[in-house]
Amino acid sequence: MKAAMTATSTGVEHVNGNANVTSRRNGQVETSSPEVTSKNHPARKYRHVAAVHSKTRPSCLSHDAEAAPSFIGFRNLMVIVLVVGNLRLMIENLQKYGVLICLSCHDYSRKDVVTGLLLYFLVPCHLFAAYLIELAAAQQALGSRKRIKDGATGPSEEDRRRFHSTWVIVAWAHAVNITLGLAITTYVVYFHIYHPLIGTLTEMHAVIVWLKTASYAFTNRDLRHAYLHPVKGELVPELYTSCPYPQNITMSNLVYFWWAPTLVYQPVYPRTDKIRWIFVAKRLAEVFCLSVFIWVATAQYATPVLVNSLDKIASLDIPSILERLLKLSTISLVIWLAGFFALFQSFLNALAEVLRFGDRSFYDDWWNSESLGAYWRTWNKPVYTYFKRHIYMPMVGRGWSPMASSLAVFTLSAALHEILVGVPTHNIIGVAFLGMFLQLPLIAITAPLEKMKLGKGGKLVGNIIFWVSFTIFGQPFAALMYFYAWQAKYGSVSKRAMAPK
Amino acid sequence: MKAAMTATSTGVEHVNGNANVTSRRNGQVETSSPEVTSKNHPARKYRHVAAVHSKTRPSCLSHDAEAAPSFIGFRNLMVIVLVVGNLRLMIENLQKYGVLICLSCHDYSRKDVVTGLLLYFLVPCHLFAAYLIELAAAQQALGSRKRIKDGATGPSEEDRRRFHSTWVIVAWAHAVNITLGLAITTYVVYFHIYHPLIGTLTEMHAVIVWLKTASYAFTNRDLRHAYLHPVKGELVPELYTSCPYPQNITMSNLVYFWWAPTLVYQPVYPRTDKIRWIFVAKRLAEVFCLSVFIWVATAQYATPVLVNSLDKIASLDIPSILERLLKLSTISLVIWLAGFFALFQSFLNALAEVLRFGDRSFYDDWWNSESLGAYWRTWNKPVYTYFKRHIYMPMVGRGWSPMASSLAVFTLSAALHEILVGVPTHNIIGVAFLGMFLQLPLIAITAPLEKMKLGKGGKLVGNIIFWVSFTIFGQPFAALMYFYAWQAKYGSVSKRAMAPK
Repeated sequence: MKAAMTATSTGVEHVNGNANVTSRRNGQVETSSPEVTSKNHPARKYRHVAAVHSKTRPSCLSHDAEAAPSFIGFRNLMVIVLVVGNLRLMIENLQKYGVLICLSCHDYSRKDVVTGLLLYFLVPCHLFAAYLIELAAAQQALGSRKRIKDGATGPSEEDRRRFHSTWVIVAWAHAVNITLGLAITTYVVYFHIYHPLIGTLTEMHAVIVWLKTASYAFTNRDLRHAYLHPVKGELVPELYTSCPYPQNITMSNLVYFWWAPTLVYQPVYPRTDKIRWIFVAKRLAEVFCLSVFIWVATAQYATPVLVNSLDKIASLDIPSILERLLKLSTISLVIWLAGFFALFQSFLNALAEVLRFGDRSFYDDWWNSESLGAYWRTWNKPVYTYFKRHIYMPMVGRGWSPMASSLAVFTLSAALHEILVGVPTHNIIGVAFLGMFLQLPLIAITAPLEKMKLGKGGKLVGNIIFWVSFTIFGQPFAALMYFYAWQAKYGSVSKRAMAPK
Repeated sequence: MKAAMTATSTGVEHVNGNANVTSRRNGQVETSSPEVTSKNHPARKYRHVAAVHSKTRPSCLSHDAEAAPSFIGFRNLMVIVLVVGNLRLMIENLQKYGVLICLSCHDYSRKDVVTGLLLYFLVPCHLFAAYLIELAAAQQALGSRKRIKDGATGPSEEDRRRFHSTWVIVAWAHAVNITLGLAITTYVVYFHIYHPLIGTLTEMHAVIVWLKTASYAFTNRDLRHAYLHPVKGELVPELYTSCPYPQNITMSNLVYFWWAPTLVYQPVYPRTDKIRWIFVAKRLAEVFCLSVFIWVATAQYATPVLVNSLDKIASLDIPSILERLLKLSTISLVIWLAGFFALFQSFLNALAEVLRFGDRSFYDDWWNSESLGAYWRTWNKPVYTYFKRHIYMPMVGRGWSPMASSLAVFTLSAALHEILVGVPTHNIIGVAFLGMFLQLPLIAITAPLEKMKLGKGGKLVGNIIFWVSFTIFGQPFAALMYFYAWQAKYGSVSKRAMAPK
């Protein structure tokens, strides 16, 4: 008391100033102000009279506040609540089901693996046939070119006709060859491969090769056309000059394309200088870890939810189905994100690095999609660029409307999706087809949002519609349907429902 | 086909250019490019040869990418997953418990309400006594001042002694008066008010008035001191000149302070010009809606979790207690946020508006706190400024270390918290005291994070520690403990455990 009363002070300015420091929201200033004050200006009188409320000011969340405060802390809180909420669900799951993961109780039968491998080795045979077809076409083109040069005349109408009739034969030969490959694979997978994972891998490989061969045929047709009938000013891309037609018709060129992480054939691709093996190792480690993660998540978390939903679907108990759907949506979303990263980032990058394939743009930032159209354009660029180059653009070029061209693309895509999902699960129930096909009206609905001039509002709404329709309802609904169909065909409702009877 | 083959084209640049457009990630450009292309340059040949892969480029999530992509879509996804996850829990809750909300089955007994009201009307009596004490002190000061002026001498040593002895009497009178008020209220609430909500409101009012009266006494002591012994250059804040001591010693001035949304006495506060009744109505509507929300959330979601945790606490089943704690944390967090907004934003702003109280800085952006210290400085500014002005600063001014002063603040705060929680729930078990008291070591631990030069890393860690310790564990743990103690004393474990036996 004595000390306080005998000390001098800087007076009212300081008393007020102190109150102002308190009012300024700044961690640094706030913490140190009492200590600093006490050091610079020792004891002062009238401490209890300081005007804490020195001016009129609004609360920082009020509309009259000058600037909205930062809400970064709430973003952190959201992450924490998500982690905590799911941690709790994990504890609950463990208490309810115990550990469902089991290394030895897989059901990969020897027969499935051998059949899958046989189908895998069927593919090079079909590719070799495709190579022979192109080789014959190239030989014929070389002859035509020689004739034209010898005659020293421009390409005649007869030449054009001959080119076209050759193309018809080549196209049919390719179609028969590769569709036979796909048909054999599909038949064997549907009737003779029980395990859906082996079936999916085999079927996917056949579909990819089918698409690649079509690209190979189309591209070589146009290259051949350019070779025989060069149009002034309309050159093939400069990139291809290092390997002009027909030099690209070699088996090694085709095998590279078979393995390359793209569906679009080019005689030449941008290549990197060397293989960074450390990069490859890291990407493969990611693939491994994410695969284990997906396996654990599926066995421990997704399977019980799927199993528990069976009787609810059977009795059409709508609120309970909805509850199951919502519970499934989180785990299916996590599995989907992990699968996307494992396949499109880790696996394709590793593959591209080993093949020194330069263009790694396998996806764009689809998570920011403001419409479903943007999503389909960005999440899977190999497929998007394929359909754009070989179906959409040629159709539009021939006078089809963009709408009709899009319809063609999505119809083919829907059919391929149904083949990829329905065949390995032995249930062609059309959900995958419809799921893909119904994207068109959804895209039409969300397209205006993308172009809206509402600033961020429309884009936010578009992004939310995308997430909700796709990950919250679309994916888990399809998973539920195929699981239900699978159970109806093979399974009994049991905890280990994925196991064969 | 014919159309395509007879058309002219801009050639290779365009083919390449087209591939580049595809590679640029821009919704606008991407959508329209096919259509635009087809309009500006009708049909072209060699469509299938376009070099889609025209250059070497990394995937956008790779480390070699030039810039990290935006992740705003994932923020939207987090919000959606939170909403969906909790929607699912709401469906689950409804299926499990049905509707637990019940308007008629409250348990506000008539006796509790009457007792609470009586205690409420006790407060003005004590305030009147406080006014009389200050009035007497002011009269005495007026006499002293007159004597000094008449004598035309400066304040003598004898004057100082007399001032001090008066202050001792005044302080004792105030202390006895207002502590008697608090003691009576505490006794009655603890022994005669069953309902915890009525008890809490009554007890909180008593504690607030206790704090306010202390502020009234301290401030008037310093004003009186300044009035009697003005020190050159050390003026009272300019704001007070419109109502100099002892003009502020009126009953209406004190009643205004009783109601004002502050704990700190000032003879004069910054005032607004008029009352915006629309503003008041909006804030009161918020208070009403949020109160209903809190009531529903408590009855429907928090109570079952609390009830279900009783046997787990009794049997000390740690994993189950943790599971309950985590489940409780989300709902207690939501209730806490709603309660914060209802009280600090809506209610205090409405009250301030009606009283034309200008300084609405009742809180700062505590949600961004990078340490627990920052949180305690910002979330409840009336209490923070009170302790700073009347305890921390005076102690530091008298040579106490900041640490000791903080210890004093938190000890008093801890005691008041225990009174506020333990008395109305009739269980002084010390959890609220400890919860507050243990903030000091937590603040000490997180303080370095706030000052870290790690850039955003340290601040993020500090913010996460704040959220986790406070909202994820601290709050629900305290709620669980007091509920358990309440049940041990009054309740049987039943679905309507909050109802009296």
